[in-house]
Amino acid sequence: MSATYDDNNIFAKILRGEIPAFKVYEDDDTLAFMDVMPQSPGHTLVIPKAPSRNLLDADPAVLSKTIPVVQKIAVAAKKAFAADGIQLVQFNEPASGQTVYHLHFHIIPRFEGVALKPHTGKMEDMEVLKANAETLKAAL
Amino acid sequence: MSATYDDNNIFAKILRGEIPAFKVYEDDDTLAFMDVMPQSPGHTLVIPKAPSRNLLDADPAVLSKTIPVVQKIAVAAKKAFAADGIQLVQFNEPASGQTVYHLHFHIIPRFEGVALKPHTGKMEDMEVLKANAETLKAAL
Repeated sequence: MSATYDDNNIFAKILRGEIPAFKVYEDDDTLAFMDVMPQSPGHTLVIPKAPSRNLLDADPAVLSKTIPVVQKIAVAAKKAFAADGIQLVQFNEPASGQTVYHLHFHIIPRFEGVALKPHTGKMEDMEVLKANAETLKAAL
Repeated sequence: MSATYDDNNIFAKILRGEIPAFKVYEDDDTLAFMDVMPQSPGHTLVIPKAPSRNLLDADPAVLSKTIPVVQKIAVAAKKAFAADGIQLVQFNEPASGQTVYHLHFHIIPRFEGVALKPHTGKMEDMEVLKANAETLKAAL
């Protein structure tokens, strides 16, 4: 890896409690919270607490602890938002679409016949995000 | 899960050796091989050998063994194809884009300024797939 981890990225700040997030799940190693620019209703991010820029430089042991949480959130999101499917996406480096340099997995509920919104779209209304976080927590 | 696992899916057939694949990595639990309709050069699939329809019904312990292989292939693919980034995608149910019902992770090399080809495009030339498999194996 040429690029290194910058602990001023926004997810590191969320992990340190310096900026708020609509959290839906947390354990010793992992945090899940709502994406503030959702590509579909219920779009959620799962991140390990351990620092890594992305998948490429992550500790494999951390990945092994993260992926069952990704699954847990995916199952809950499908139920909570009555989704027809779930798309899991994870970007590595700018050419792939990565914009925040702390490893994160996108869990995106999909609905039959409904296209995704662009990820760099508008910030979602905070009340909508808060309500979706509550709906998702209730399905966990 | 309403839907169940159908062991006549093409990845189950690849696992049983009934149809060929351009394999790049195999261990007791996991197989990686070239996607025959690559969205970009080097598009590779990683699958657990254990049957599950997708992420939603997978054994978490299987996921924890699969994800380090996903990482290994992602790192190797970035190097092998001199990619600028790697996109990891995993589809659950038809509404999300799933077309083969055995859990699989797409590892898609990304190149600055180059859009992805549609996934349901044309079958790639077998010689190209074979050469890409060799290139990727050499980087593992």
